[in-house]
Amino acid sequence: MPIDTGDTAWILVAGSLVLLMIPALGLFEAGLLRRKNTVSIFMQIFFGLALLSVMWFVFGFSLVFGPDETGGLAGNLDYVFLKNVPWDDSLPYAPTIPGVLFAKFQLMFACITPLLLTGVIAERMKFSAFILFIVAWSILIYYPLTHWVWGGGWLGALGVFDFAGGIVIHTSVGMGALAAAMVLGKRRNYGPAIMVPHSIPIAVLGSSLLWLGWFGFNAGSALASGGVAGNTVIVTHMASSVSALIWVGLSWMRTGKPSVVAAINGAIAGLAGITPASGYVSVEHSFIIGIAIGLASYCGVLLIKDRLKIDDALDVSSVHGIAGIIGALAIGIFASSAINPTGPDGLLFGNYEQIGIQAIGVGVAAALGFGGTYAIMKVLNFLIGVRVSKEVEDIGLDIGEHAEQAYADEEEFKIDEDLQKHSK
Amino acid sequence: MPIDTGDTAWILVAGSLVLLMIPALGLFEAGLLRRKNTVSIFMQIFFGLALLSVMWFVFGFSLVFGPDETGGLAGNLDYVFLKNVPWDDSLPYAPTIPGVLFAKFQLMFACITPLLLTGVIAERMKFSAFILFIVAWSILIYYPLTHWVWGGGWLGALGVFDFAGGIVIHTSVGMGALAAAMVLGKRRNYGPAIMVPHSIPIAVLGSSLLWLGWFGFNAGSALASGGVAGNTVIVTHMASSVSALIWVGLSWMRTGKPSVVAAINGAIAGLAGITPASGYVSVEHSFIIGIAIGLASYCGVLLIKDRLKIDDALDVSSVHGIAGIIGALAIGIFASSAINPTGPDGLLFGNYEQIGIQAIGVGVAAALGFGGTYAIMKVLNFLIGVRVSKEVEDIGLDIGEHAEQAYADEEEFKIDEDLQKHSK
Amino acid sequence: MPIDTGDTAWILVAGSLVLLMIPALGLFEAGLLRRKNTVSIFMQIFFGLALLSVMWFVFGFSLVFGPDETGGLAGNLDYVFLKNVPWDDSLPYAPTIPGVLFAKFQLMFACITPLLLTGVIAERMKFSAFILFIVAWSILIYYPLTHWVWGGGWLGALGVFDFAGGIVIHTSVGMGALAAAMVLGKRRNYGPAIMVPHSIPIAVLGSSLLWLGWFGFNAGSALASGGVAGNTVIVTHMASSVSALIWVGLSWMRTGKPSVVAAINGAIAGLAGITPASGYVSVEHSFIIGIAIGLASYCGVLLIKDRLKIDDALDVSSVHGIAGIIGALAIGIFASSAINPTGPDGLLFGNYEQIGIQAIGVGVAAALGFGGTYAIMKVLNFLIGVRVSKEVEDIGLDIGEHAEQAYADEEEFKIDEDLQKHSK
Repeated sequence: MPIDTGDTAWILVAGSLVLLMIPALGLFEAGLLRRKNTVSIFMQIFFGLALLSVMWFVFGFSLVFGPDETGGLAGNLDYVFLKNVPWDDSLPYAPTIPGVLFAKFQLMFACITPLLLTGVIAERMKFSAFILFIVAWSILIYYPLTHWVWGGGWLGALGVFDFAGGIVIHTSVGMGALAAAMVLGKRRNYGPAIMVPHSIPIAVLGSSLLWLGWFGFNAGSALASGGVAGNTVIVTHMASSVSALIWVGLSWMRTGKPSVVAAINGAIAGLAGITPASGYVSVEHSFIIGIAIGLASYCGVLLIKDRLKIDDALDVSSVHGIAGIIGALAIGIFASSAINPTGPDGLLFGNYEQIGIQAIGVGVAAALGFGGTYAIMKVLNFLIGVRVSKEVEDIGLDIGEHAEQAYADEEEFKIDEDLQKHSK
Repeated sequence: MPIDTGDTAWILVAGSLVLLMIPALGLFEAGLLRRKNTVSIFMQIFFGLALLSVMWFVFGFSLVFGPDETGGLAGNLDYVFLKNVPWDDSLPYAPTIPGVLFAKFQLMFACITPLLLTGVIAERMKFSAFILFIVAWSILIYYPLTHWVWGGGWLGALGVFDFAGGIVIHTSVGMGALAAAMVLGKRRNYGPAIMVPHSIPIAVLGSSLLWLGWFGFNAGSALASGGVAGNTVIVTHMASSVSALIWVGLSWMRTGKPSVVAAINGAIAGLAGITPASGYVSVEHSFIIGIAIGLASYCGVLLIKDRLKIDDALDVSSVHGIAGIIGALAIGIFASSAINPTGPDGLLFGNYEQIGIQAIGVGVAAALGFGGTYAIMKVLNFLIGVRVSKEVEDIGLDIGEHAEQAYADEEEFKIDEDLQKHSK
Repeated sequence: MPIDTGDTAWILVAGSLVLLMIPALGLFEAGLLRRKNTVSIFMQIFFGLALLSVMWFVFGFSLVFGPDETGGLAGNLDYVFLKNVPWDDSLPYAPTIPGVLFAKFQLMFACITPLLLTGVIAERMKFSAFILFIVAWSILIYYPLTHWVWGGGWLGALGVFDFAGGIVIHTSVGMGALAAAMVLGKRRNYGPAIMVPHSIPIAVLGSSLLWLGWFGFNAGSALASGGVAGNTVIVTHMASSVSALIWVGLSWMRTGKPSVVAAINGAIAGLAGITPASGYVSVEHSFIIGIAIGLASYCGVLLIKDRLKIDDALDVSSVHGIAGIIGALAIGIFASSAINPTGPDGLLFGNYEQIGIQAIGVGVAAALGFGGTYAIMKVLNFLIGVRVSKEVEDIGLDIGEHAEQAYADEEEFKIDEDLQKHSK
């Protein structure tokens, strides 16, 4: 098929919106954490974006989307350095947009996925260990899983569907979050006192930009403009809205006050959760799925953080993991090939097998996500240690690891200038 | 007509840009208000977005754009839960984009409109009363008015034109702002001391994202890509630029200093004001309209806030109301069917009647906006009280209503951690 | 050619993304500077945007892109007030999008270019002098240079290529930065103590939005959707990623700590540097160019700031100037007409002349940028003085020039309110 200017315009934008989600994630997280670890989060996100982009260019894209000569396990090296990826013609994955644009759109997914784990390991992981961690996580977990589902691998061949990444992204990250939190251990003085957001404006800004970007993330995964993309944006928006209302309602009942932190977390859970199903279901059904996501992810936080005392700092296991699993399974119930002719039908439309197939996909992603993350963290801990010293944790990773401070006090400058004046 | 990928791409983006305006509004407002009411603004905006989205999905869209069996008063219930809204085909309102995408684009307008009133009622309204207020406002004011002008109702049939919402949005909101401020009364200690912005960076960021989003708001209202959308963006940009210059110039003369708060307010007034005319006039004429908007809205603030002592906290009545009325009437003078073949001609192009017709539309919107808002606020005040207690107003709505603080002081954490250490 | 809806959709968005870069630049700069000069930066940016927009509308567009009757020196006045610019038809520069949309896209470039110099003159230039400076700079430097390269002028006729502005924007601004810094002189107490960023979150946010906007800046310069735009986004992204890694690596080696300020500066250098070449080279070659940009711009900062002690406050001469020159010359080596049929071939593809031609373009832009800026600053200094008083510099330009403060302390309000209460 020839390149379509409208489809290309949409994917140019959608890929840009996913880029925006990466710093937006940093803002969302930094705002909810303590100010002494703000630079640390930004550095993990920003450096991670650069590093994972280069990895994708050098070999990642090829391992995931290169021609498969292994019977479904990995792509070959035809596309290393993005050689042979056409700029004026398309790849079969996206027949109406330039091949390099498909590579760039997918690059953004390959960057944001490992970086979602910054929300778990926050405030206590060494920056050097973090770098090795995301490199290993990409190669051992994200690249294989994505190839298996999207790149012509065995899970896709089995009939597993995942529109925009609920299995390859949210399930693997969410289960990996549990493993990472278990290896790293709790932050010092773990408890409500250290969980006060240092800047709600920054967190709200981050979550808002995430909401915006998610339209690109989900509807861009149609890889074309048109009816599927149009349906995806409203499906995405509705799940997010419903989930936000549920979170506010539940926390209002529990604490007696309507909380904006609950509102933004609920919205993100809705967005993450609907992701795998967003291109296959109707907006009515996304309303129902949104309710399920909201309830389950909220309860997940209570269970994991309050009961099990696992220090998943920003609840990645619930907000991404539990939410994503629900959305991935919901395909098996609510998907309709009337909405997306390239998608499956679910239980409601007479296909009783899809939900089982989806469960296999979820199971594989959960097992690889949990097991792989656990192994990587353990090995890294053995080799170089994954956790900063007590002293660095107490003064904050910003000063301890980066020698930078998020906010400089004007008073310090004045004193400093006074000293300079006197010394002249 | 078949779905056009280019048109659809633009409306996918434009609807996303309007979403962005909603948190941008929160940032703009929060930055200009006191820090103790920051969470309150964000919560109104974020929770409002979620709630109004669900209302639109359940029945709002149907009441506004459903088939009219009442002779111009309201849509029927064919589209409740967005049933019967096509995803692979179009509605007559927007013949080249998917029906659900039109519903989603309009959803964003239905969300942002009532939320513009957060700027009036800021720093003193109960959150519970606010929720009921926006629900009632949508049902009694926004849905009817929008149906009358855009949904096949009687004002549209009369020949009233409103490209992107100067009548249905800015006039009704602006006049409603006056009513809401009158019922609520002034903030405690009303005067210059409480009007110092707590964070100019946040306010500038908000206004910048509003400027960006307004291109989607206005040029998206073309409901297609092409010449009308292209003209609309430059028309929008020029009115905003001119109005910003006028505000800076006037305030510079009055106070002796060039003020960035004037610059951003002037830009927003220009954007709001040109909205109804943005798809019908040339850029030369938008330059002239921008001058009128800038002058009138600036003088409006002086009149309403300084003279009449009406506490419209962020000048919604001037920046949106007066500005929008000027733009809506300007259609009657400057509109040209050469620019938009589906639009009217104005006075300058030989049509002497349009300005009178526009005045009817403005009059209806102003009357419904003022009267309806006044009635809703009075009823709510009678039923549950609209205003927080003095104590809550003094400590701030963030603590008083939400038990959250916008910014947490690191020192508090340190003390807390010290205590924990000692107690071990 | 008829208007293409997909091309138009992309340029509608791309122009909006470039608008976003303007406040993003303000955030990036304000975050890296001292808090007492925050309002000053925002006001320069915001007021500058409005003023330069109006200038472009009144005569700028016509001088740059109007029909040339001077044999390559300037456009005529056919397009003043954007008269005769078609809204439903195209200009020859962009045959598939509305003429007014081309004018609006270029408007954004005409706004951001002079405003890049805010990074040099920060914290010490009078606002009144700044206004005259950007007016003169536009008329004497940007308009001529842009006409010469893009508007049918003599440099374009000579065969100089500049995809998105490395010559007309980054070279001229970068060399102008040196001149401006030399005339203005160093800030008081120049040294490391005054270079502590006052808000890293704001700086990171600004740089992130710049990265996002740059996709519009570069890929929008294709003036169409399709293969060239698709290739441009990944080329742009890769240069930025590589340059960010190089900056972090070099500063890590120098200081022993990985710095987020280095990461964001490196990314911006990569974006600025690849700009001229972004539409002509492959992603493999952009990887190589990105390495060169990162190394050279990092060393440039060391040379200019540390050795030569020229107070280019935010390193515009290196991050834009040196980077842009490398990218402009790289066209002469790496450009391939296979990638962009309307572009040149470089050395690697058998065209040995292009690099010399590019050097002429760079030389002219550097000479005009440096010489013109020096002359303008000297004349302004003679006429009205360009530098604020010592007192204003010490208390900060926010209070001194604008009577506004970036952040208001809640305590002040409380005291104020207490006073009011007692006085009642």
